[in-house]
Amino acid sequence: MKIAISGLGRMGGQIAQKLAEDGHEVIAHNRSREPIDEAVSHGAIAAYEKADVVSTFNGEPVVLWIMIPASVIEAELDDWLTLLPAGSIIIDGGNSDYRGDRARADKVAAAGSVLLDIGTSGGVWGYDNGFSMMVGGDKTAYESLVPALDTLAHPRGGHQFFSTSGSGHYVKMVHNAIEYGMMESLAEGYRMLKEGPYNDINLASAGDIWQQSSVVTSWLNDLTRQALHENPTLEGIEGVVAESGEARWTLETANELGIPLPAIQASFDVRLASQKGNISLTTKLLAAMRNKFGGHNIDGKQ
Amino acid sequence: MKIAISGLGRMGGQIAQKLAEDGHEVIAHNRSREPIDEAVSHGAIAAYEKADVVSTFNGEPVVLWIMIPASVIEAELDDWLTLLPAGSIIIDGGNSDYRGDRARADKVAAAGSVLLDIGTSGGVWGYDNGFSMMVGGDKTAYESLVPALDTLAHPRGGHQFFSTSGSGHYVKMVHNAIEYGMMESLAEGYRMLKEGPYNDINLASAGDIWQQSSVVTSWLNDLTRQALHENPTLEGIEGVVAESGEARWTLETANELGIPLPAIQASFDVRLASQKGNISLTTKLLAAMRNKFGGHNIDGKQ
Repeated sequence: MKIAISGLGRMGGQIAQKLAEDGHEVIAHNRSREPIDEAVSHGAIAAYEKADVVSTFNGEPVVLWIMIPASVIEAELDDWLTLLPAGSIIIDGGNSDYRGDRARADKVAAAGSVLLDIGTSGGVWGYDNGFSMMVGGDKTAYESLVPALDTLAHPRGGHQFFSTSGSGHYVKMVHNAIEYGMMESLAEGYRMLKEGPYNDINLASAGDIWQQSSVVTSWLNDLTRQALHENPTLEGIEGVVAESGEARWTLETANELGIPLPAIQASFDVRLASQKGNISLTTKLLAAMRNKFGGHNIDGKQ
Repeated sequence: MKIAISGLGRMGGQIAQKLAEDGHEVIAHNRSREPIDEAVSHGAIAAYEKADVVSTFNGEPVVLWIMIPASVIEAELDDWLTLLPAGSIIIDGGNSDYRGDRARADKVAAAGSVLLDIGTSGGVWGYDNGFSMMVGGDKTAYESLVPALDTLAHPRGGHQFFSTSGSGHYVKMVHNAIEYGMMESLAEGYRMLKEGPYNDINLASAGDIWQQSSVVTSWLNDLTRQALHENPTLEGIEGVVAESGEARWTLETANELGIPLPAIQASFDVRLASQKGNISLTTKLLAAMRNKFGGHNIDGKQ
């Protein structure tokens, strides 16, 4: 299908490439030129200005996938709404706060178009393995997008429609909150191996064995053991761990609803403390995991 | 190889069967008769009394795998030491407290034999998938046991020697503490899906999609989504969740060493609170997971 991608960062670039390589007609747009030219090398059509995106659709409604940071979604959406013809489908594929999705969807609807929210997981491995895509908003618009989602998602059913506006981002947000808790649990355990009563336990070997039919077998444990094989002392890892919003929003929502999330709260607090200098093997392991699945910098700045 | 198994419960029974079916000469012993007869039906040789185990070895040193609850290991070991010839190898394959392993190993050594501690994970699926086996104690004894471990363990390296006495149980104990934290994180997240602002999110579908290339892809998430497909409302699950000792011992050790384990502590506290009546969807999901991987009763009594 014909689809424009705006925001060709780590995730958006992979999405444009994967779609173009599978024969979709991809229009590639980005604030800076270089990622556009990169997408063109994979078969996409360049659109250096927003208006170029619209003109490639010859006045027809546009299918536009926006993949940008949550902090700029509101302003970008306003820009696009001045340009897009009615009947367009806009996908907010970033990690936007679900609590703003309903209002944004209403704004898009007032302009005669439709907003879908798609939470996407898969990190830097999504290109190879397919993404895990959680969709909320207008179900008909979702169905029209299935050819593109079938290309992007994991082949065994990696995309799913959930509910009204915001529900895709909500399911993705909760996913990330779980991720915080699972990462913290693993990191605490590995620290116990290292700093416990036996001083010669090989952490990577423990990770290897836990990855073979144990109850904690998981992608995160797999990444942890890989990181420990490559860098057993975690040399050069500062151990300052950023929080990207989703766990904070989950905790805020839980607090409003009176739902206790003690493990997720504890995991979130450890990250905040790391930013105030409370560094340990636990936080270094968190940083190593994030680096593995997301290509995040290990100095905690990304 | 020739090996006796004493304690033919859920795990011990599987171990005896798997060894016998792979051609090892298995001597099956248990307090009650029925599990022995069951093992015999899989090719094992019956030993209704402890003395029968010794006599089947014709006075030669015995290789004895003990698979019993941690609470009775001390007394059972004392019993066996009065019977076994010097040079025997005793494997404590249960979830014994690692802090007692050194003294038990010394006691066995004083009788001229050797004690290995093997922590085993894999739950009720171990028979099919192979177990994950963590070994501590005497390395030479471990090496002599490799033919049996190769039969029992996951084919891609499911057994591993770690360090001195207790280290196998220690690595397994830490594994279980991680398991508590991962389970709690997942359960908290699924509860947020159910009790959050969208009242029609299909929890099993979310689990399906999280199992396809998402960061939380894990065996525990797989079991959770299976449980939710089979029983979407978790009907009949009381949500009282037992703790089996390992997380408590991990927390005691961490406390002594001054290592904070906030996510594991939070997960442990939720289980204790469930036993005092603090039941929620979170604790019901924990019970459902335990039932899936361990065949534990969903009423929290096992």
